[in-house]
Amino acid sequence: MEVYLDNSATTKPNKEVVEIMLKGLTDYYGNPSSLHHKGVEVEKLMKTARKQLAKALGAREQEIIFTSGGTESNNTAILGAVEAKKRNGKRIITTRVEHPSVLNVYKNLEMQGYEVSYLDVDSLGKISLDQFKEYLSEDTILISIMHVNNEVGTIQPVEEIGKIIKSTSNKPIFHVDAIQSFGKIKFTPNKLGADLLAISGHKIHGPKGIGALYMKKNLKVAPMLYGGNQETGMRSGTENIPGILGLGEAVKIIYENTDKNIDKMWMLKNSFIEHIKNEVKDIKVNGYEREGSAPHIANISFSGIRGEVLLHSLEQDGIYVSTGSACSSKKSSKSHVLKAMGLKEEAIEGAIRFSFSYHNTQEQIDYAIDKIKKSVKDIRKIMKR
Amino acid sequence: MEVYLDNSATTKPNKEVVEIMLKGLTDYYGNPSSLHHKGVEVEKLMKTARKQLAKALGAREQEIIFTSGGTESNNTAILGAVEAKKRNGKRIITTRVEHPSVLNVYKNLEMQGYEVSYLDVDSLGKISLDQFKEYLSEDTILISIMHVNNEVGTIQPVEEIGKIIKSTSNKPIFHVDAIQSFGKIKFTPNKLGADLLAISGHKIHGPKGIGALYMKKNLKVAPMLYGGNQETGMRSGTENIPGILGLGEAVKIIYENTDKNIDKMWMLKNSFIEHIKNEVKDIKVNGYEREGSAPHIANISFSGIRGEVLLHSLEQDGIYVSTGSACSSKKSSKSHVLKAMGLKEEAIEGAIRFSFSYHNTQEQIDYAIDKIKKSVKDIRKIMKR
Repeated sequence: MEVYLDNSATTKPNKEVVEIMLKGLTDYYGNPSSLHHKGVEVEKLMKTARKQLAKALGAREQEIIFTSGGTESNNTAILGAVEAKKRNGKRIITTRVEHPSVLNVYKNLEMQGYEVSYLDVDSLGKISLDQFKEYLSEDTILISIMHVNNEVGTIQPVEEIGKIIKSTSNKPIFHVDAIQSFGKIKFTPNKLGADLLAISGHKIHGPKGIGALYMKKNLKVAPMLYGGNQETGMRSGTENIPGILGLGEAVKIIYENTDKNIDKMWMLKNSFIEHIKNEVKDIKVNGYEREGSAPHIANISFSGIRGEVLLHSLEQDGIYVSTGSACSSKKSSKSHVLKAMGLKEEAIEGAIRFSFSYHNTQEQIDYAIDKIKKSVKDIRKIMKR
Repeated sequence: MEVYLDNSATTKPNKEVVEIMLKGLTDYYGNPSSLHHKGVEVEKLMKTARKQLAKALGAREQEIIFTSGGTESNNTAILGAVEAKKRNGKRIITTRVEHPSVLNVYKNLEMQGYEVSYLDVDSLGKISLDQFKEYLSEDTILISIMHVNNEVGTIQPVEEIGKIIKSTSNKPIFHVDAIQSFGKIKFTPNKLGADLLAISGHKIHGPKGIGALYMKKNLKVAPMLYGGNQETGMRSGTENIPGILGLGEAVKIIYENTDKNIDKMWMLKNSFIEHIKNEVKDIKVNGYEREGSAPHIANISFSGIRGEVLLHSLEQDGIYVSTGSACSSKKSSKSHVLKAMGLKEEAIEGAIRFSFSYHNTQEQIDYAIDKIKKSVKDIRKIMKR
């Protein structure tokens, strides 16, 4: 049996997504900037995709900018906001547990003289509103808080942060990385109070190489890519039509099945956690088990085991999981998220992220539990020798 | 009959390109950063694509960076080079006829205090080496010269420029936009003396949303996107696997058929120009007709006719062309290229770009000539009333 439990790293594109992408690669190959029919027909399809995103986000069409993916969305949000606000101050607030596509931009901005305050997280991976209020000042220009953490699934109090920001006089720009929450939690950027919100195609059974940035109407941020002024000047470059159509379709499917999908993922996650706690000794769930976390991520530390060893053992049984996030799994550096949560080195090294999709089945979970139980037992036996 | 003569705006992906992309969307959906088999197998496919690019460019695998397209390649090249060389000077040399993805980056850099010298072009669209030498100084840090102009097809003396740069003591970085020359002219970055060279997928019957940047070994330029450090840190973001595989396949097809394809395009272009000169009155070919230009672009001014009117008339007959480039065709601004070549307003407004592919046929050219002849006659008759 093949059980893909690495859906936070990437997902398999839905059949309907592949089908519409094929259309964009064959019949509808025109350049949307072309004046003739082949351009016009493609522009129409792109408009439909944009509508689908706007609908799912409770936003206006002109608030949706297509990008090459989540990393570009986050980078554009931050650099664009900083450029727009550079005369208002140098202070920025973010968290210690953001994705590298946020953290590494800030590392770079720090070298340029920006002062970035990093919110700590508690042992469950959650930031504190008190610390946020403490850090917030009149010259704070930008705030980046991720909605759902990609390694442990913890939900940050983004809506509360949004409310606090609204009550300030200087109104810093609020950027939310919603790449792991979109389709897994019901929200709109408006409800969260977000000015900028990043999403990615390949995390929601859409294609790789495409993402979007919600940009609140009338917000003025600088673009990152300069050129032919596509996307109302916010993102130059010939539009990735197959990708855009695929993203639109993936979002449409999500929007039409949100409640059902979320229920399904909760069922799988609850069952997984319940079984693993009952059947595998000396494990620890990192982060919230139920409320407080997203329905698709379960991060577990297996005592006395190196995550990588378990990962490769499970792979032999057709089960695919990850240690930390895919983005940093190949680097020897340890998870900055688990570290910020105060986990001991052994627990960090023994952590595995299981991430679910609504396409997973109870049968797959049962199979996975069975194999995990066996693998963990075998590895521990060997380690004891 | 449908005759697509807008191949400089975008091309139809080859059948083999679509097939391999399908693989990357279905069976091979893993994240190449994943440690398990689903990641490893995808990484291998990506390596094959990278090899195909390296081979076609006579380069090393590690010199190839995948990007989201030509615009990102050009932007990354320029901004990365400027960041790397910022302590060496503020002077940059480019041409008046670059693509907007180069010109608009420089417009922005000028606002930041960089001094950009724009090389003029003659009536055929070519820069002068004397003026280049005149502009070149000890504090020139970067030079951007496009290989083939996207509106008129004129080839710039890039190789000669490369040699002059090599003879300088300060060695400015040499960036070449080869988006319109790759597959249409035989070259290697090494032969041109280029340090950075941009190519795009969708101009060579590959997919939209993917491109590459050749970056000479040991050259140190700053990345534009920060995050998970994919592409050896030069381009963060989960790799667009279907796009990369599609680009690899498109490049492979080009590499295996370069001579044949170039001959075919020359045959079509020569026939087109010969016929249009013989059969349509009061026209002017903008730029070189044969030697000195690329085999796939013919830019023609039709006296007394607005390009847009002719474009829509030809569209009725299934013939797709463009006025200027796709990137600027929707803006009211007149072609900066034809203006730089000294064309009068009427000739600029009456210009149409016909751009060929090796997939076009002689029969299509004959049909197009026939319809152009008829359309021009009809439009001129109406205009005279």
